[in-house]
Amino acid sequence: MSNTQKNRITVDIYGQQYVILGTESPSHIRYVASLVNAKMREISSKNPGLEVNKLAVLTAVNAVNDYIKIKEELERLTIELQKEKE
Amino acid sequence: MSNTQKNRITVDIYGQQYVILGTESPSHIRYVASLVNAKMREISSKNPGLEVNKLAVLTAVNAVNDYIKIKEELERLTIELQKEKE
Amino acid sequence: MSNTQKNRITVDIYGQQYVILGTESPSHIRYVASLVNAKMREISSKNPGLEVNKLAVLTAVNAVNDYIKIKEELERLTIELQKEKE
Amino acid sequence: MSNTQKNRITVDIYGQQYVILGTESPSHIRYVASLVNAKMREISSKNPGLEVNKLAVLTAVNAVNDYIKIKEELERLTIELQKEKE
Repeated sequence: MSNTQKNRITVDIYGQQYVILGTESPSHIRYVASLVNAKMREISSKNPGLEVNKLAVLTAVNAVNDYIKIKEELERLTIELQKEKE
Repeated sequence: MSNTQKNRITVDIYGQQYVILGTESPSHIRYVASLVNAKMREISSKNPGLEVNKLAVLTAVNAVNDYIKIKEELERLTIELQKEKE
Repeated sequence: MSNTQKNRITVDIYGQQYVILGTESPSHIRYVASLVNAKMREISSKNPGLEVNKLAVLTAVNAVNDYIKIKEELERLTIELQKEKE
Repeated sequence: MSNTQKNRITVDIYGQQYVILGTESPSHIRYVASLVNAKMREISSKNPGLEVNKLAVLTAVNAVNDYIKIKEELERLTIELQKEKE
């Protein structure tokens, strides 16, 4: 079996079904989908009446923002670790 | 100026305007918005005809997936750094 | 309409339906359920083969642990705020 | 001793043994487990015949709900404290 074999998983996000293709395990894909769903529910509960497409875009903005922050932290830590090793 | 003061920035994502409130700098918020816009354009080019809200949800799925991977790497590195310091 | 009127919301958590009764808004209840679901998916992805009832108990342990930590932080902050006001 | 060293504590929750790994102290872990056990007993006494996994999920829903409420209060208080300091 190849490592690059793709799993085809159907997930439910904000009441809509999506087929996700990924090399990750089904349980990992379901975990990712559940986090996106939770984020959409959070933004929706704080902004009642917001349209779904705007909700989805704001969720993407949030996710990308979190990604950038953690990536910067990883870069800082990589440099620190390099110094420790020297 | 307080650290908790929120900036109110209007950005354009996938042809739609959004007002983003955040404690981050305007340039950081614009950078995040540009990444979301770029990711939506990429997914759209590979899936012509996909609705905007599905496009945005898949963009969020992508970003959250990247986030989790980098978070796991960060955890590994933190443990490694801790060991180096001992 | 009374503030204490209970909403009766059906949510899906880890593939199982639950009827949740609460005075909170439907969107809030759905948000809470989505977080529980995400936590179960996370623990499951890290512990493949774990039985559902153990998964659910460990999710509850996690949630209660987070609750206690944030409660202690709130208590610290309340004391700090009190001192500032004196 | 490293900060990231994990304690391995066996606790009893609702008649079942669990090994909990955490950086927290053994007494803290036992305290968290006792709260989960107490909450499950409470929900069970009000809903006789409910299956253990549903009981645990509802316990997690309860804990996450409490967590979100206290987190929102913490956010309000942090802003208030910031204003006091200005």
